[in-house]
Amino acid sequence: MSSSKDIDDLIDIMAKLPGLGPRSARRAVLHLVRKRALLLTPLADTLQTVAATARECLNCGNIGTSDVCDICTSNERATGELCVVEDVSDLWAMERSGAFKGRYHVLGGTLSALDGVGPDELSIPKLTDRITTEDITEVILALNATVDGQTTAHYIADHLESRVKLSTLAQGVPIGGELDYLDEGTISAALNARKTV
Amino acid sequence: MSSSKDIDDLIDIMAKLPGLGPRSARRAVLHLVRKRALLLTPLADTLQTVAATARECLNCGNIGTSDVCDICTSNERATGELCVVEDVSDLWAMERSGAFKGRYHVLGGTLSALDGVGPDELSIPKLTDRITTEDITEVILALNATVDGQTTAHYIADHLESRVKLSTLAQGVPIGGELDYLDEGTISAALNARKTV
Repeated sequence: MSSSKDIDDLIDIMAKLPGLGPRSARRAVLHLVRKRALLLTPLADTLQTVAATARECLNCGNIGTSDVCDICTSNERATGELCVVEDVSDLWAMERSGAFKGRYHVLGGTLSALDGVGPDELSIPKLTDRITTEDITEVILALNATVDGQTTAHYIADHLESRVKLSTLAQGVPIGGELDYLDEGTISAALNARKTV
Repeated sequence: MSSSKDIDDLIDIMAKLPGLGPRSARRAVLHLVRKRALLLTPLADTLQTVAATARECLNCGNIGTSDVCDICTSNERATGELCVVEDVSDLWAMERSGAFKGRYHVLGGTLSALDGVGPDELSIPKLTDRITTEDITEVILALNATVDGQTTAHYIADHLESRVKLSTLAQGVPIGGELDYLDEGTISAALNARKTV
């Protein structure tokens, strides 16, 4: 198509990335070839490094470039707080906020009887181990506010309530949110959890 | 942010690609790390190859992995027809149609007095050379139907009309197009170029 097999292959692989299709993959490849020093070479080198080193942290499930990730090895993060999230992308979102100073535990999904996902598939046994070995005093259940996420949160809460302090993220009006655009569930939750000024 | 510098670097570079932003770059990188054998390793390898070999064809300006691209070296494409396009992406679009069997000449842009783009910046001298050296009998001006594209087409036509047969792409109703959604200019052009059935 473009007169070179390597470039066609590159377009085909790029088109498989989420958010890109054949047309945007072609555009991205042309852009890369034109910005060789600025983009193509750095991207090729970084991808090689990541392909060789990226792995799941054996402790928390985060994705990093060593067996145990930087958050798990940092002593500053040993605050006794453990934030349980569904997915690595949720961990990254929490980190971007900069609001949490403790460690994480990535479940890798939600419980689902239909899909055959039980507690053992979700690294919940590992979670109970960590509470003992890492002297965890508080577990923050930062699961998504979906039916599956909340079911999983209830299951974990049932298992851990006798052993550790448990909390969940507050529900309410998002910062910058307008009431007119919020769904009824969020408004109800915000009203029920209202605070005295 | 994600607890590993290499992965953060990869996200930063991916976010600079056209069509991707920080959020979709993070999604793409997570997807890549999870599909290591299927996507990450092939992408890293192909990018290395392309970064080492991709270059502009010295003859036509197409992007390939050798000094002279496959279209220019193929004897089957020496039909005496030369298709002049603005950009490599236009060449690829023509190739996808499969309708043209000759060779190409990529101008690399359009004439623009404001931006200081004259004929010498657009490989127009190279075009006139090729008409002699490659025994070109017909030049097809496949420039975009924009003001700049048509200005450039007129300039090239003025310079070449005594030396070679010149043609441009037909203008009219696109295949599958509905009149109700077409602009007035296209309808006028299609009416003026009407054909007897």
